[in-house]
Order: sequence, then C-alpha cells, then structure tokens
Amino acid sequence: MTTQQLISQIHKKKSFLCIGLDVDLNKIPKHLLQTEDPIFEFNKAIIDATHHLCVAYKPNTAFYEAYGLKGWKALEKTINYINQNHPEIFTIADAKRGDIGNTSSMYAKAFLEDLAFDSVTVAPYMGKDSVEPFLAFKNKHTILLALTSNEGAFDFQTKNVDGKELYKQVLETSKTWKNSENLMYVVGATKAEYFAEIRRIIPDSFLLVPGVGAQGGNLQDVCKYGMNSNIGLLINSSRGIIYASNNNDFAEAAATKAKELQQEMEIILSK
Amino acid sequence: MTTQQLISQIHKKKSFLCIGLDVDLNKIPKHLLQTEDPIFEFNKAIIDATHHLCVAYKPNTAFYEAYGLKGWKALEKTINYINQNHPEIFTIADAKRGDIGNTSSMYAKAFLEDLAFDSVTVAPYMGKDSVEPFLAFKNKHTILLALTSNEGAFDFQTKNVDGKELYKQVLETSKTWKNSENLMYVVGATKAEYFAEIRRIIPDSFLLVPGVGAQGGNLQDVCKYGMNSNIGLLINSSRGIIYASNNNDFAEAAATKAKELQQEMEIILSK
Repeated sequence: MTTQQLISQIHKKKSFLCIGLDVDLNKIPKHLLQTEDPIFEFNKAIIDATHHLCVAYKPNTAFYEAYGLKGWKALEKTINYINQNHPEIFTIADAKRGDIGNTSSMYAKAFLEDLAFDSVTVAPYMGKDSVEPFLAFKNKHTILLALTSNEGAFDFQTKNVDGKELYKQVLETSKTWKNSENLMYVVGATKAEYFAEIRRIIPDSFLLVPGVGAQGGNLQDVCKYGMNSNIGLLINSSRGIIYASNNNDFAEAAATKAKELQQEMEIILSK
Repeated sequence: MTTQQLISQIHKKKSFLCIGLDVDLNKIPKHLLQTEDPIFEFNKAIIDATHHLCVAYKPNTAFYEAYGLKGWKALEKTINYINQNHPEIFTIADAKRGDIGNTSSMYAKAFLEDLAFDSVTVAPYMGKDSVEPFLAFKNKHTILLALTSNEGAFDFQTKNVDGKELYKQVLETSKTWKNSENLMYVVGATKAEYFAEIRRIIPDSFLLVPGVGAQGGNLQDVCKYGMNSNIGLLINSSRGIIYASNNNDFAEAAATKAKELQQEMEIILSK
C-alpha cells in the first residue's frame, strides 16, 4: 500500500485508528476456546465488527509465537482474512525484528512478501545494514522503534548521545538510509510532550503511536503536537478495544470502544 | 541448563564452539529438497556429525520464519531433536526479541518454556522492562545484544552516551536489572580490540561471539582479550561450517570445519 492510499483511507473513514490484535487465550471469551482455532475466530469477529472504524490492524507476533505452530497458523489466517476481505486496511506486523543484513532480509521476506503485511516494526540497535533490507520493498513500510511507550524507554532512548537524545539520533540517522521514504516510526503516546521536537526532525513521516488507553497516553495531546498536514498518525489501541468485554458480546463491545475513539478522531479531523 | 553445566561441557569437550543453524534452502544440497522436511533433515545431519565438537547450537529464527509454518515446524523438530538426543548441549534461540513487559513475557514463554531453549537473544533498545521478563526464568539465559558484529554497530552502539559508548551503558545498566545473573552478552568477533574493556565491566559473564569466519573475526584475538577464568566465551560459526560443502558430503565437510575450530580451541584451552 502506498502512503497516499493510507491517507485517503484516513479521510474516507474519518479515522486514524489502528487496532492491535494481541490475542491472549486467557482473556478471550470462554466459548471461543471450544472452536478449532480460537485465536483466528476471535480476530475474525473483532475485524468483522470494527473494520469500518479503523484504518490499520496490528497483530503483535509475540502473542502468536507464544502458541507455537497453532499461533503461526492463526497469524497467517488473520492476515489473509484482512487482505482478502479488507484490502484497503493497512496491516502492521508488530515484530520488532532486526539482525545482520542477510538475516534481516529473511525477516523482511517473511513478513512483507510471504505473509504480505504492508509493514513491519523494526528495532534500530543494530543500525543501517539491519534495517535497509526491510526498506528495499516497494510500497511496503518499515516502522522503526524511536521512542517507545514503556518505562524502559528512559534507560537508553532518552540518554544524551553526542549532545542529543538517542531516539533523535535514530530519527536523524535513519533519514540518511537508502529508501528512507519507506520509513515510519514508533513514538509512544505516553510521551506526548516529545512530539513537537520529533516533528522538527521528521515533519512528514507517519508515526505509529501505541500507549493510548491501557498505558495512559492522551489522544488530544498526541494530535496537538504530532499531527501533520497529511495527518501522519496511526493511533494504536489493543487491550482497551479487544478486551472491552469477555462475554458473548465481546465484538460489539470492541466496536463500541473503537467507535468512541473514531468519533474523537472525527472531531479532531474536522477542526 | 546452569552456567556451571555449560562450563563443565566446555572442559569435557575441549571446545567452546557454537554452531549456527541458519538453514537457507538455496544453499543446502539439492537432494535434501526432495525430502518431506529439508530444513530438519539438513539440521539433523549437521547435528549428528558435529555434536561431539561443539557445546552449543544456535538456530536464528529468521531462517525459519522465512518458510512460514513449515519453518516453525522444522524449528520445533530441531530443538526437540537436540534436547532429546544431546541434552548436554546449550541451545540458543537467536531471535533478537524485545517488547513492552507483558509482550516480552509472551516471547520468553515461547522460546524458554514451550520450545525449551536454554537461552534467547534479546535487543536492549526498549530497556529494563523489556528484558526482565526473560530474566525471570530459572536456569535459563538471556543473551543481550551489546556490540554486534555488523557494520551498523557503529551507527548507535559505539556512539558516546553521557561520556561512555552506548554498548558500555547497556552492559553497565543491565547489571542492575533483576536476576541479572542470568545475563550473557553478544559481542562480535569483528571487534576484538573492544573485548579488554568489555571484560572490565562484565568480568564473569559469558559472551556469545558471532563473526568468526565468514564475517572476518579472528579466534586468537577474541580469546586473548575476551576469555576469563571460566572460559566465558561461546564462539559461533554458522555459514563457515554448515555450508562447507553443498554436495552429498555436506555433513562430513561441516564436521571437518568444526573439528578445525575445536582443535584451535583445544590448544587455547591447554595453555
């Protein structure tokens, strides 16, 4: 998917919501556990109920790997279901991968080609040659970790590197990499005050913003400082939407929560 | 596996060799492609031919994910085969994972509990709460990326952070984390001159050292500066061993290459 197609979808749906499909079998409604593939059945119901309210879905691979082969099968079925039924939706493999060049190429092939995700999240610690293999895929997007939403972000990311915080060095250095136009960045909503400075470095890039909801981030603040003329934001909510209820009405409850966020976004977009 | 058991194995086998099981279907002998599970058959032959020469095996998960479900099945079969037939061998899931706390817990469960690897490689960028879930597993080991063997290591890892290179900050900070006795570190062989300083910060920890062979690192130099009284090194070779030949004799050729390294190690250990 091109960035322009993503922007069009945002305007059409009046939403820049991304829903995180992080399925934990301990949290989903009990009746689904009797089906052959509870993870996929859960995702399918969530997707059917929310696809008109969001522009992106983001399965975090950890939640699938934790169930071994069954988990990977469910991940494959989920991405195929989205691509077949809702090809207009931007898909993110939240994998946080990164390795030496020839190895990163294997990850890139796995997520961007074989599983046909539109994008994959990548960790920057190993530098240029660990990220460029992902950037080589045309009309695919590499979402680089910059400033994450967790407490541990302060351990290294905000440390001063040659006069500038490490996450800013990551942003600036990554702009010099080949095919850097295919970069997006992860910036946590829990650090809204950082968005203004981030926008000075990368005014045009899309930001994937986790941490609204369960982790305490505020949508208004993020938009105030992080939005650009192309919107430039994908706001992710996982637990706050998909676990809104663990009864039979879980999909409707998820849609209600998604709708609340979409309506907040519609108001922001109309300003 | 406890660290003491690993040290005992090193002395018994007179080897601190780790063999990287990075299976690329384009590089393995053609006749294996006709078997039902070429990846596993390749690994099984390599393991049968080399298990007496090495103390660790390290499949890099990228090479398995690249083949989707079949790849994951081959990874499961490979780790089960090692654990059943050679339980004395230290196993490393080279996964370079790392995510917010509850998500890292899922990765830790996947690799250390379900797949029953002895250890997993983890990226430090997201800090303490992204690594501690891995450290919580008793007699399991978390191998943190410190200074990697690739060119991109110079993009961020060697940058000056508050007066000290980032990889040194990672080493020092990680020592303060809960269950830090379960930490090992990745330090690339291509940067042998850094080992002396690294040993000043973490004198006792085991280091997993990629980059000998195909990437140009030198075994003698690494041992000179990196070895401690418990040996403290696992030297990895992947391509240099497993692709020594792509004919019918591939397993014997791999054993010959592994034997060369083991004999170099035996001499070093006897000094």
